[in-house]
Amino acid sequence: MGSIQTPKPTGRLHLGNINRNIVAAQYAVRGELAVKAEEYRARLEKPGHPLTIEDVLPFDKVIFANIGNPQQLDQKPITFFRQVLSILEYPALLDNEEALRTSFGYKQDVIDRAKTLLRDVRSVGAYSQSHGSPAVRKSVARFLEKRDRFPADPAQIYLSAGASSGVNTLLNVLCAGQHTGVLVPIPQYPLYTATLSVLNAKCVPYYLDESKAWGTDVDGIKASLAKAKEEGIDVRGIVVINPGNPTGASLTPDAIKTVLDLAVEENLVVIADEVYQTNVFRGKFTSFKKRLREVQRDEPGKYDHVELASLHSVSKGMVGECGHRGGFFELIGFHPEVTEQIYKFISVMLCPPVIGQCLVELMVNPPVEGDPSYELYQKEYNAISEGLYQRAHALYDAFKQMEGVECQEPQGAMYLFPSITLPPKAIEAATTVNRAPDEFYALRLLDATGVCIVPGSGFGQKEGSYHFRTTFLAPGTQWVSRIIKFHNGFMDEFR
Amino acid sequence: MGSIQTPKPTGRLHLGNINRNIVAAQYAVRGELAVKAEEYRARLEKPGHPLTIEDVLPFDKVIFANIGNPQQLDQKPITFFRQVLSILEYPALLDNEEALRTSFGYKQDVIDRAKTLLRDVRSVGAYSQSHGSPAVRKSVARFLEKRDRFPADPAQIYLSAGASSGVNTLLNVLCAGQHTGVLVPIPQYPLYTATLSVLNAKCVPYYLDESKAWGTDVDGIKASLAKAKEEGIDVRGIVVINPGNPTGASLTPDAIKTVLDLAVEENLVVIADEVYQTNVFRGKFTSFKKRLREVQRDEPGKYDHVELASLHSVSKGMVGECGHRGGFFELIGFHPEVTEQIYKFISVMLCPPVIGQCLVELMVNPPVEGDPSYELYQKEYNAISEGLYQRAHALYDAFKQMEGVECQEPQGAMYLFPSITLPPKAIEAATTVNRAPDEFYALRLLDATGVCIVPGSGFGQKEGSYHFRTTFLAPGTQWVSRIIKFHNGFMDEFR
Repeated sequence: MGSIQTPKPTGRLHLGNINRNIVAAQYAVRGELAVKAEEYRARLEKPGHPLTIEDVLPFDKVIFANIGNPQQLDQKPITFFRQVLSILEYPALLDNEEALRTSFGYKQDVIDRAKTLLRDVRSVGAYSQSHGSPAVRKSVARFLEKRDRFPADPAQIYLSAGASSGVNTLLNVLCAGQHTGVLVPIPQYPLYTATLSVLNAKCVPYYLDESKAWGTDVDGIKASLAKAKEEGIDVRGIVVINPGNPTGASLTPDAIKTVLDLAVEENLVVIADEVYQTNVFRGKFTSFKKRLREVQRDEPGKYDHVELASLHSVSKGMVGECGHRGGFFELIGFHPEVTEQIYKFISVMLCPPVIGQCLVELMVNPPVEGDPSYELYQKEYNAISEGLYQRAHALYDAFKQMEGVECQEPQGAMYLFPSITLPPKAIEAATTVNRAPDEFYALRLLDATGVCIVPGSGFGQKEGSYHFRTTFLAPGTQWVSRIIKFHNGFMDEFR
Repeated sequence: MGSIQTPKPTGRLHLGNINRNIVAAQYAVRGELAVKAEEYRARLEKPGHPLTIEDVLPFDKVIFANIGNPQQLDQKPITFFRQVLSILEYPALLDNEEALRTSFGYKQDVIDRAKTLLRDVRSVGAYSQSHGSPAVRKSVARFLEKRDRFPADPAQIYLSAGASSGVNTLLNVLCAGQHTGVLVPIPQYPLYTATLSVLNAKCVPYYLDESKAWGTDVDGIKASLAKAKEEGIDVRGIVVINPGNPTGASLTPDAIKTVLDLAVEENLVVIADEVYQTNVFRGKFTSFKKRLREVQRDEPGKYDHVELASLHSVSKGMVGECGHRGGFFELIGFHPEVTEQIYKFISVMLCPPVIGQCLVELMVNPPVEGDPSYELYQKEYNAISEGLYQRAHALYDAFKQMEGVECQEPQGAMYLFPSITLPPKAIEAATTVNRAPDEFYALRLLDATGVCIVPGSGFGQKEGSYHFRTTFLAPGTQWVSRIIKFHNGFMDEFR
């Protein structure tokens, strides 16, 4: 079959004729470095490794610090969530509640919740409504009301396969070709630039201010906007990631109001990516929805027409259930003829995974004080939260000691995004092999230590500055020592 | 908050400025009729219904025959699958295997499989590789090799969130703007036309031949192709749904070869939607992959450059697990620079749901003779298969008795797609209210009986002909009697 398996250049599709918007898209989080890291992992896990001298690697484990994937590393799922999901997958477990309790420690609230969810969705193997089970959407609305102390309407809540799929939906509807654009923070999670590229719409970048802990700089946004308008771009929306990815920065209520003011002045739809809302180390998370309702209340009329979409997910926070692909977005102030089109668009993909929808329900409606599962839930939740804090600061302390590395104090999310001042010789060496300098650094780090990070160029950064993003999810400090050792060697080599 | 909740026409987004490709897309399977049916269901289930005389409906149950959603109706999940999934969701169940066996009847192969899958994916809460867990892709390759008796390469297998997401990926890469097109059978499952519309690419329709049991008519395809070329369309691919949706038609090996010959002559990528491969009532399913490998073997050289993507899913067949959003596609003969772009494209959405991936593994690698779970698995599988056959034929027999209704004998999939000859007065009445005649019929049917079907216009049909698609999943015959009674009344009314 060999000759058949090898594709010929005479095939129908090649790089030159497929969708050029996809070819142009960039997504470094799972790019070349991640693929290489995966190859190293497979090589290390192959039985009998190393088979040859060429096969020997200078490390015995790959650390995937490129992606916020808590359960790939050390984070354990929360017991209450998973006990309920086990019953949803096999409802016949309810035929022997006594055995569930005595042999497996399922508490009554686990059993009750599973029964409620099964009554609502019937079977997790059945399609739900396109925007998700009505009961789950109701539960999300109650959560939002409790969080923000303002009403939420289940009809305006759309469950999605992770927040990524929600962002994809929103940008698909918002963008109408190459003359339409969306303001995106730089650095940013590349989902935004990649999706805008696929849609052949314009990413209008606005730079976050590293000197002010990666805060939002309104004058900068206005300048970007003015430039885009001059170029004939119809800028329709602004993306805010809060807490920030990759920066971890957490916006104050004032900063949020500034963005809302801008949305009013410039008639922009606000897309608030709030998936890290529980990953906040300093201060308190304020949602865009809450802030919008407050200013609408405080200054009647002015903010009435703001259109806001805010997103959340089961992937991050202390839940960390990325593999389940659960999430939702809430729409505020969207015209019904637009939401109708959103509904149609998501209907073509039928529905988000139903077990992921149920996990959304569990996340927004966890055990509360007095519930049999509360104590364990709280213990597990706090331990994860504490662990993330510890790891973030251990990594931060390490970066502080590294020559030429500067890092903002950890604020939230799952990432640190230090800047590195690379020696001119390193920049030269990178240029010689046709690599961005930070990419060159990250590749060398991977090859030397097995630690996979994402170069700052994958998120965008100011010309001439270099950064990298690393998660602080991996347990232990040994991998951090490996980074320090590599860094010292690298600096010496190119000094 | 009332005034804030009501969107003003001064908002940023409205029907006239959002993505016009989405506005243009049509997806009737979950369109107006389905939304109305859902409203009826909610009304019937509201406590205390009916509250007022206006609230009274002429039926006490809504039958969702508009969508192939087996577990929403009567189909029970297969025990082996769900037992394994319950352990994957809560691995601590393995801490007491004895209790699993004695209290819940889990067999040893259930426990063993769960352990294997947990070793492979670590946690179903962790992201997998973008194209799915390597172990699951290996298992899929083994299944394809067993099914087709030709080699399959796990590296060319891409797990997806149901087949729909796979189709979306393939069309996204294949299409490069408004001058590129794809041949799509008519009638078709509207995922294809809707996605092409969103991509602003051309749907090049080819009509299936109702007089030949909805077979593929090559001369018709060639004529469509010639016409499209004349219009300057670069036709790049052909979609074949086998067994057909909505027609149920099952292609013979000869018919498949005809399509492959055409692919060679016209340099077309073949997209084979084979999600109904186990829903075959007559004859035997032959895959496009198998047939391609056979003709490649029999006529060396001629078919070397054929690019084939074939899709499968956990949603249909006797598995019927749509809510889990599991599926995969296999690529044959694609250029590596193209598959690299496919990988990048799917990476932006991170990965398909991991529990759905595990269900794919279970589907392609079920218990075999001698395994402890085999007997029950086989019994359940056969009962579902037999039930579908019985229901299809009961419905078919009913249609045979109905005036002006003609229906092909059930061949496969989950649908019947009868034609209806509507009286001129009914067509007139439909025109008066600005409805397609078959849509008018379907709306009247829903209002009178609670049975939700999809009018033929939702799938495409020859000008002047009318059809509807109904699933044969709903249990019992009472709903069928309701259709007959309605139909007689409708015919009398408009005779």
